[in-house]
Amino acid sequence: MIRVSAIQQLCNMPQAQAYQHSAELIFTASNNGADLVVLPELHSGAYFPQREDKQFFNLAQSIPGDFTKHFASVAKRAGVVLVSSMFEKHNNKYFNTAVVFDSDGTIAGIYRKTHIPEDPGFYEKFYFANGDGQIKPITTSLGKLGVLVCWDQWFPETARTMAARGANMLIYPTAIGTIPEDNDNGAFLDAWITIQRSHSIANALPVISVNRVGLEEDLLSTVKSIDFWGHSFITSAMGELLAQADETPQIIYADIKLDNTLKTRRMWPFYRDLRPSLYSLPRSICD
Amino acid sequence: MIRVSAIQQLCNMPQAQAYQHSAELIFTASNNGADLVVLPELHSGAYFPQREDKQFFNLAQSIPGDFTKHFASVAKRAGVVLVSSMFEKHNNKYFNTAVVFDSDGTIAGIYRKTHIPEDPGFYEKFYFANGDGQIKPITTSLGKLGVLVCWDQWFPETARTMAARGANMLIYPTAIGTIPEDNDNGAFLDAWITIQRSHSIANALPVISVNRVGLEEDLLSTVKSIDFWGHSFITSAMGELLAQADETPQIIYADIKLDNTLKTRRMWPFYRDLRPSLYSLPRSICD
Repeated sequence: MIRVSAIQQLCNMPQAQAYQHSAELIFTASNNGADLVVLPELHSGAYFPQREDKQFFNLAQSIPGDFTKHFASVAKRAGVVLVSSMFEKHNNKYFNTAVVFDSDGTIAGIYRKTHIPEDPGFYEKFYFANGDGQIKPITTSLGKLGVLVCWDQWFPETARTMAARGANMLIYPTAIGTIPEDNDNGAFLDAWITIQRSHSIANALPVISVNRVGLEEDLLSTVKSIDFWGHSFITSAMGELLAQADETPQIIYADIKLDNTLKTRRMWPFYRDLRPSLYSLPRSICD
Repeated sequence: MIRVSAIQQLCNMPQAQAYQHSAELIFTASNNGADLVVLPELHSGAYFPQREDKQFFNLAQSIPGDFTKHFASVAKRAGVVLVSSMFEKHNNKYFNTAVVFDSDGTIAGIYRKTHIPEDPGFYEKFYFANGDGQIKPITTSLGKLGVLVCWDQWFPETARTMAARGANMLIYPTAIGTIPEDNDNGAFLDAWITIQRSHSIANALPVISVNRVGLEEDLLSTVKSIDFWGHSFITSAMGELLAQADETPQIIYADIKLDNTLKTRRMWPFYRDLRPSLYSLPRSICD
């Protein structure tokens, strides 16, 4: 049994304050028995992709660096496996990168966001190159973590690839919300939950999806503000909602058993019947 | 604008009676303005895979045959595009086959179920060979229909393949329900709806899922009965439920615009960002 937790936090604050705020929440989660703690996407300050501005490239850090030094220390002191998210500079490229720390403070692995969105107010293609690595789980003392990031959550292929490569759970640090012109009556939020639950169902894996929360204004942005809608959640290996946040800052928890995946795959034996030779996603449609 | 309909019907009756019952419901749907009518899986009688019994192979028919003759005539007289489902004998193999008739009574195409389930009470691997064709849409006067069958609905790959090959909608004739020993508090039904809505969301396509309904007893079966739970539904191109049945016999309708797919793919530009070269589903895991 593993207790997992999702820290749905306010992020719109100076970096030093955000480092401290996340650290305090990680210690709180640890004190509440969490073995695994997941932070939202790019949690160390305002969501800078609200606008395209070259100065924000100064926020990027290398690995190792101040960011990894800080959160390695927090993970070790809290005694938790920690999934964090940062703006990474690597050689001449910049990535949207999740960094996983084991509970001894070592870096268990990193994952560079595979799919990069680009929408008014979410100008990520300006900042981030496409992830350049394999889609594969990160091995930790708690098992193999299928860490993906935000926009990846809309692609069943990323979940399947992680699962086929042995992930024990799927984890999505996220930054999603509405801009003032949005008027979708909640259809987008509902779709966001639905598609991630479907990855849980198709692969018999728990899903931990952790969103930012709160209104972030940027008067120089074309959209002027984004209201990050929270609603982080954790599913069972059958896609059931074990815990779900509302639209306020909070930490949610769930106790999960990794061997439920084996049991669920015997009950729902989709893997027995996969026929990869018949599936086609022509590379020509996007490469 | 196309009016689509799903006929959630009782099927547990002699074949001649089932033929007549489906025909009456198709005419009703047509009278209510339906352009496209979808029947549930294996609608021409009791769900015989409740047990393994060689005598049931006598139910299989060739194409063309009595089944196609009957439903071609009904489609033509009702003036609808019709998605039907049958037990097909083809050379020395037997398939679980969807047959699509255009509104002039011609056979627009067939689809042989790709993934065959096998569970107590659902002994389909005894009867049906794996579908041997490509997963590709069937062209009709109403557009390209992405016709799949039941168990296929649990595989995001089949939906993606249909979509990548130009399907305008996804259609799932289905036979799903509970056996007396099931005690899942509705988790299975919820998962069934969730994963199919996810195909709608991932691909920006309407989904029409049509289930059998009603208790079918078979005292020679190991499970003794299956309660087909109905709950057929139709989604928008954003995965929203436009119509949903309860657990009683009924016809549901929805008006859909095929150009909503284009609009939705501009709003949710997942296809822009697909990276097929990174997705992996090793053939070794099942072939």
